[in-house]
Amino acid sequence: MTRELTAYTWVPPFAQGFVRDLRVRWALEEAGLPYEVRLIQPGEGKPADYLDRQPFGQVPAYRDGEVDMFESGAIVLHIATEAPALCPDDPAQMPAMTSWCFAALNSVEPQIGARNRYGSASEDLKAKLQKSLDRRLDALATALGEKDHLMGGFTAADILMTTVLREAEADARGRPGLDAYLDRCMDRPAFQTSLADQLRTIDENTPG
Amino acid sequence: MTRELTAYTWVPPFAQGFVRDLRVRWALEEAGLPYEVRLIQPGEGKPADYLDRQPFGQVPAYRDGEVDMFESGAIVLHIATEAPALCPDDPAQMPAMTSWCFAALNSVEPQIGARNRYGSASEDLKAKLQKSLDRRLDALATALGEKDHLMGGFTAADILMTTVLREAEADARGRPGLDAYLDRCMDRPAFQTSLADQLRTIDENTPG
Repeated sequence: MTRELTAYTWVPPFAQGFVRDLRVRWALEEAGLPYEVRLIQPGEGKPADYLDRQPFGQVPAYRDGEVDMFESGAIVLHIATEAPALCPDDPAQMPAMTSWCFAALNSVEPQIGARNRYGSASEDLKAKLQKSLDRRLDALATALGEKDHLMGGFTAADILMTTVLREAEADARGRPGLDAYLDRCMDRPAFQTSLADQLRTIDENTPG
Repeated sequence: MTRELTAYTWVPPFAQGFVRDLRVRWALEEAGLPYEVRLIQPGEGKPADYLDRQPFGQVPAYRDGEVDMFESGAIVLHIATEAPALCPDDPAQMPAMTSWCFAALNSVEPQIGARNRYGSASEDLKAKLQKSLDRRLDALATALGEKDHLMGGFTAADILMTTVLREAEADARGRPGLDAYLDRCMDRPAFQTSLADQLRTIDENTPG
């Protein structure tokens, strides 16, 4: 079975190392599952039929065998179903892991995105968005507590949470528990490999 | 097995009928699975141990048998695993349904939330957020096309997408395909029952 994900040939510097195919690459690396990358142009240069696979025109899309998927969270969760390395030791804990996968993308990432993107509109809004983000990060640090990872051992939920937290890395690192958590997850060879792979493609396609 | 979800005793008018326990109620109604509601106070009045179950202090949390979960998306997806009524007829389509579940919460809801919450900060930001939301809704309408539901037949993904679109109902209803989609989903008896149940509790607990 061939596993294929889509990634961009190139993105602007602010997005380099942060494009969401990173999450899928990391999951596949952790799982030891080989894959191919189908490069597409960002913006208007996408294949005519790409919207059939990714309705919002983004990356990644993913396919293996019968499966054709989009949304990095859904893809990582799907890969976990065939990769014990991405799951809790106790199968009864899979629903709790799924909770943390959604939490990363629906209860933490939107607050980070809002602060990063809209904070410049006014000082009032900036303060409000920062406060909202701080609350979520404090709650996350409390929930993590003394655990090494969200579920104890490393799982797919940590892939999603780590890549989300990297979008507000300075904020996360201001909390000792999250700082250590980020080190622990980002030091993993599979993360390093997948990050290097994304960056290498971008470097090879940088004009000039 | 007892299924229990948490809901608020009362919320301010703007949130009435929109609290996320609605999604879980709807899923359980569609599945024909009986459940109990554990009411909690919003704000500071939550039980001391509630953060152990819901790290961000929100509703719903959900438990059944061995499972203790949070995040409405994760809970609805979990319920779907035991409810054929919430799944595509072809099990090979489950990953695609999962894609749409994440899409509702990670590619549509954040754009709606941002427009609704931050649009008042400046005219520039308002226009930018509206444009971003319009793009997503146009893409969604295109993806839905002539289909009755996201996966053809009704699934858990429609529960999440419908409840998300209701947060920007006027915008969605401005597109004929999404207007008909919302009617189709919101006319379902299970939706009507779950909405009435949430509103009845709030009404019973309205001061004065």
